[in-house]
Amino acid sequence: MNYKRFWIMLSMVIISIFLLNAAAPRPDEGMWTFDNPPLKLLKDKYGFEPTQEWLDHIRLSSVRFNDGGSGSFVSMDGLALTNHHVARGQLQKMSTPEKDYVKDGFYANTQADEIKCADLELNVLQSMDNVTDRIMKVVKKAKNDKEALELRNAESAKIEKESLKKTGFRSDIVTLYNGGEYWIYRYKKYTDVRLVFAPEGGIAFYGGDPDNFTYPRYDLDMAIFRVYENDKPIHPKHFLQWSEKGADDGELVFVSGNPGSTERLSTIAQLEFLRDYQLPIILKSLNRRIEMLKQYSLRGKEETRQAASLIFGMENSLKANQGEYKGLLDKNIFEKKQKEEKDFLALIANNPEWQKEFGGAWEAIAEASKKQSANFKPMIFRNLRGSRMAQLALMTVQYVAEVTKPDGERLEGFHDAQLETFKFNLFSPAPVYPQLEEFRMTDGFKETIEELGAEDPFVKTLLNGKTPEEVAKELIGGTKMADPEFRKKLVEGGQKAIDASDDPMIIAAKKVDPFVREMRKKMEDEVQSITASAGEKIGKARFAAYGKSTYPDANFTLRLTYGTVKGYSMNGTIAPSKTTFYGLYDRYYSFDTKPPFNLPQRYLDGKDKLDLTTPMNFVATLDVVGGNSGSPVINKKGELVGLVFDGNIESLVGSYVYDEETNRTVSVHSQAMIEAIRKLYNANGLVDELTAREPKK
Amino acid sequence: MNYKRFWIMLSMVIISIFLLNAAAPRPDEGMWTFDNPPLKLLKDKYGFEPTQEWLDHIRLSSVRFNDGGSGSFVSMDGLALTNHHVARGQLQKMSTPEKDYVKDGFYANTQADEIKCADLELNVLQSMDNVTDRIMKVVKKAKNDKEALELRNAESAKIEKESLKKTGFRSDIVTLYNGGEYWIYRYKKYTDVRLVFAPEGGIAFYGGDPDNFTYPRYDLDMAIFRVYENDKPIHPKHFLQWSEKGADDGELVFVSGNPGSTERLSTIAQLEFLRDYQLPIILKSLNRRIEMLKQYSLRGKEETRQAASLIFGMENSLKANQGEYKGLLDKNIFEKKQKEEKDFLALIANNPEWQKEFGGAWEAIAEASKKQSANFKPMIFRNLRGSRMAQLALMTVQYVAEVTKPDGERLEGFHDAQLETFKFNLFSPAPVYPQLEEFRMTDGFKETIEELGAEDPFVKTLLNGKTPEEVAKELIGGTKMADPEFRKKLVEGGQKAIDASDDPMIIAAKKVDPFVREMRKKMEDEVQSITASAGEKIGKARFAAYGKSTYPDANFTLRLTYGTVKGYSMNGTIAPSKTTFYGLYDRYYSFDTKPPFNLPQRYLDGKDKLDLTTPMNFVATLDVVGGNSGSPVINKKGELVGLVFDGNIESLVGSYVYDEETNRTVSVHSQAMIEAIRKLYNANGLVDELTAREPKK
Repeated sequence: MNYKRFWIMLSMVIISIFLLNAAAPRPDEGMWTFDNPPLKLLKDKYGFEPTQEWLDHIRLSSVRFNDGGSGSFVSMDGLALTNHHVARGQLQKMSTPEKDYVKDGFYANTQADEIKCADLELNVLQSMDNVTDRIMKVVKKAKNDKEALELRNAESAKIEKESLKKTGFRSDIVTLYNGGEYWIYRYKKYTDVRLVFAPEGGIAFYGGDPDNFTYPRYDLDMAIFRVYENDKPIHPKHFLQWSEKGADDGELVFVSGNPGSTERLSTIAQLEFLRDYQLPIILKSLNRRIEMLKQYSLRGKEETRQAASLIFGMENSLKANQGEYKGLLDKNIFEKKQKEEKDFLALIANNPEWQKEFGGAWEAIAEASKKQSANFKPMIFRNLRGSRMAQLALMTVQYVAEVTKPDGERLEGFHDAQLETFKFNLFSPAPVYPQLEEFRMTDGFKETIEELGAEDPFVKTLLNGKTPEEVAKELIGGTKMADPEFRKKLVEGGQKAIDASDDPMIIAAKKVDPFVREMRKKMEDEVQSITASAGEKIGKARFAAYGKSTYPDANFTLRLTYGTVKGYSMNGTIAPSKTTFYGLYDRYYSFDTKPPFNLPQRYLDGKDKLDLTTPMNFVATLDVVGGNSGSPVINKKGELVGLVFDGNIESLVGSYVYDEETNRTVSVHSQAMIEAIRKLYNANGLVDELTAREPKK
Repeated sequence: MNYKRFWIMLSMVIISIFLLNAAAPRPDEGMWTFDNPPLKLLKDKYGFEPTQEWLDHIRLSSVRFNDGGSGSFVSMDGLALTNHHVARGQLQKMSTPEKDYVKDGFYANTQADEIKCADLELNVLQSMDNVTDRIMKVVKKAKNDKEALELRNAESAKIEKESLKKTGFRSDIVTLYNGGEYWIYRYKKYTDVRLVFAPEGGIAFYGGDPDNFTYPRYDLDMAIFRVYENDKPIHPKHFLQWSEKGADDGELVFVSGNPGSTERLSTIAQLEFLRDYQLPIILKSLNRRIEMLKQYSLRGKEETRQAASLIFGMENSLKANQGEYKGLLDKNIFEKKQKEEKDFLALIANNPEWQKEFGGAWEAIAEASKKQSANFKPMIFRNLRGSRMAQLALMTVQYVAEVTKPDGERLEGFHDAQLETFKFNLFSPAPVYPQLEEFRMTDGFKETIEELGAEDPFVKTLLNGKTPEEVAKELIGGTKMADPEFRKKLVEGGQKAIDASDDPMIIAAKKVDPFVREMRKKMEDEVQSITASAGEKIGKARFAAYGKSTYPDANFTLRLTYGTVKGYSMNGTIAPSKTTFYGLYDRYYSFDTKPPFNLPQRYLDGKDKLDLTTPMNFVATLDVVGGNSGSPVINKKGELVGLVFDGNIESLVGSYVYDEETNRTVSVHSQAMIEAIRKLYNANGLVDELTAREPKK
């Protein structure tokens, strides 16, 4: 029984538990770990009992895109489906001033035509084990929170390293239920990923920023990659069969993917920190940076191409964060969260043992949140912002320093088990745009000065009397960090090479590194160590009070979500559960064909070839958040019926609460993808591969 | 300078008046009388200066549909355009169990095929004169509010009668600015109105109750009548030329029509009465009656036909009233209204003369509102409800009694100048459905008992120990009131015939009449007389404080409204300024062709004939409310570019406030009407007549 249920119970004490269980079905809420799927809920509400094989099949068909999204295997020859907006970073990296794959799309007629991604790592979750006891046993010995954090980190690194060594799989310690549980998750890792198909950006992101996070919607937000090993396509044992019919209105569907982050189990103090410090600062900064990038774009076509994906990403963050912020400012929502916490606290207080063990945790977090507020701005702004080359320089400087230490003592991200992925990113051949970097870095300095003041020691050290323009020009103009071979040589040369380097960006990174480490340490000592220990207590308290009938907050690990294809009340009327291609053309002509409601030429030339009644996008009561982008929507038979790409505007408060009445996941319909690929892109080979039921002869 | 502007001034005292006038343009707010058009606003904001001829042409092309809507002349042979939902009552009255014009539509191939309406009166505003001074001169003599009401009513009746006699035009006293002004409005009246064209109900009201008052929208909510005199089509000197192009995004447009009722100048006490008494009672009753009618419809196809228009009307009222209620419950809106009143009161209080003359008015209205609250339920429920035959019986009984009195002493509605219209309605040949009447009357009695209690003297008198079922059966089963000839004979027979009648409905009406008169009297003495006098004071105070730079509240008299064709922020994104036929089919297929999103067969068979890019509906910042339905949307050239049929969901608070950001009028695009009539209804003769630029040879 989760705490929400419990609250209902408290207010309905007269009604028997049996009656209550038979009452209104529990909403389709929850991002469930695969070790604890909501079997009873599914059986009670939908009469569906997934087998362990079904669950394993779904899990092993699910692919995490480490650029920040999800996906799935969709063919026996290793095709992996995700969103265009998840693929966008890689599309940008393969593009050139002459060939803009983001804007113009791509289709590889043959495997030889497929384009390798610069630095895309995919993960498939192979197994997971609960290591809570092992970690707790070590942490127990700590004399204080600070020591507990060190011991916890060291033991985690040790478990990861052991697991990697034993299985060869990428092995990550995963914290669930605020520290109520620790798990080791093992992933099969793929780093040779090649682009097969992407539609034009204009149809993938039809309606642009205005339509983003809204519905009804008309996006073909898809991209297809092929996964290789040893230069050959893989043949995954598990992949999702394509449902050409898709899901009907009212049908039970599932999503398997990696929701990025939620705050549903956070304390009120943590939510207040978000509301009163973090989100206002982030929103302000995003607005500024978007404005600057738009100014940069005005310079010309190539500048527009360079900045487009950055603007997309920031506008996406802005709209999402605005929705979250609005949610926290909503008195009804906040009062609901306050009541939940109050009831939880009352339950703990009623049991002297619990009170003794867990009672102080909320207060401790509240104290830590105050420190977090005080440190938040310097933590954000005392850094080299707005330049990828600067980030690479800092990574290089820190890498060289960290790897000489014992594994357990290194900064998070530099443990032995993490180094392969770290170096994959550090040595990425992805292009950099020096002109754009200089522009962004200049404004990044200016923003830092405005936020921290000219007398901040970081500002003084970094600028050393020069103007932001001068420093940015010097650093970007003089560095060789754009070259991956240069980075490799520095890393190979170790501390000596770093110390000897006259590359201005390396020199700047060395100056910045102590500030970054200082803020990191401060946050660890004053915030993380306390919230980690207190979180563990709250996690245990929750299990004690409510059992394990709920799901942990999202943290970009694989989750299973269930729901119904279903419209909702919206704008005074009803939103239908699906849209059609007719609606795409309605929106196009309604806005007089103006951007962002214009269409790629292909969609105008080919309009008569399309069956306009084909479902295009659809909504379901699936509980997802950012990170789930690209997740497959799956029917009871385990077939792919859709591709998650968004939530509606009402879902943006989903970080804190889920409301089945209005929260909807927006997905591309499986029919729409086939219809478009076949009729407009004439990619029949691809359609055949996606829809194949039996291995090819 | 209106009071809103003044408020801005108070808060910006430092800024000079000149600067202020040059600041942000005033929103497109206002339902302006034709004697006081917003010439300066139009010139300042749009650089448009309508001539008096332009204004006269618009006014004389505008047609009031006395069923509760607006319309316009649109051809030289007397075609009048309005909404299907304005025509709906008449369509219902011409329909039979065999031929349902509401559902199936109608087109008269020749003038001989046109169907005469049972009781539709159209009015065209010919002239208007300010009679404030004349009325005030008389009212001034009154010793108290009660006497003032009597004198005001008597003088009004006298002016109306004189005007009618002198001009032959229907002459109505019109109260503006809460009594700040009184006018005599003179109308040319038409009572021979014949149906030429109506589309199927399913396309006129596409999307049904869910889509009602929303946008984006896809309705062909139109009907066309021809106006006759002496059995021949009239040739109006003024009619609107049809614009086949319609209005562009961003274009300045106008509406000339008859907004029914607003409460923008009402006092806080009056709004509180609406919020706390009137609206909750009305909403409850509407919900109940809709539910009952839906039960009745379940009995069969003919029952469904009989109840359909009633359900439509009540659902329409329900949604509108819910929107208004929500507006009054919105703290921001209410606080805005409170601040407006507070500022107004402060301004009055600052001037000792004003304070002496007007100061007590708000208090007086507050006192009257309390009385109104106490009397509201008996006033509503002490009546014969749910039966047209009962209403006709009561009209007959009252008519016979009133006409023997001197004109000035009669009940409102029975003055000499009003009798022609009264009798037109009383002797209407429109069909009645006894089975439906009995069903509704039975539940009407039950509702009255529930609301007033079984011991209420009205209930006891009416039921006299019998059950509601028994009484309704007796009355409906025994009456001959369905027959207009029967009514005529009673009226001709006068009081003697009434007294001698053994018709059970007449007997019941005689029993009910004293209760109705008592409540009416009570309301006059305790509420109307006070609010009329106080309203006059507030009206004068407003002129004194702000001048005549504002518009009076709506009261179903002709008003001019201006605005821009413009989308708006909605649902997290932007609503386009127009929709297209593509969107109609999107909605059809999105909802799996299910009602109310199904389509008439003609729209499926004829889909390929349509140019789906044709604009269908559009929105503009025009400030309209119910009663404006059917109004023409007019461009600067005085051409018809659209047909008002609704407001968006955000416009429902328009009774109290206008917000240009989101308040939108929804209209049928002039292109859509021509496209459908020509391609789907093959009514080329009608298209030719509508689009003719020169008289036919």
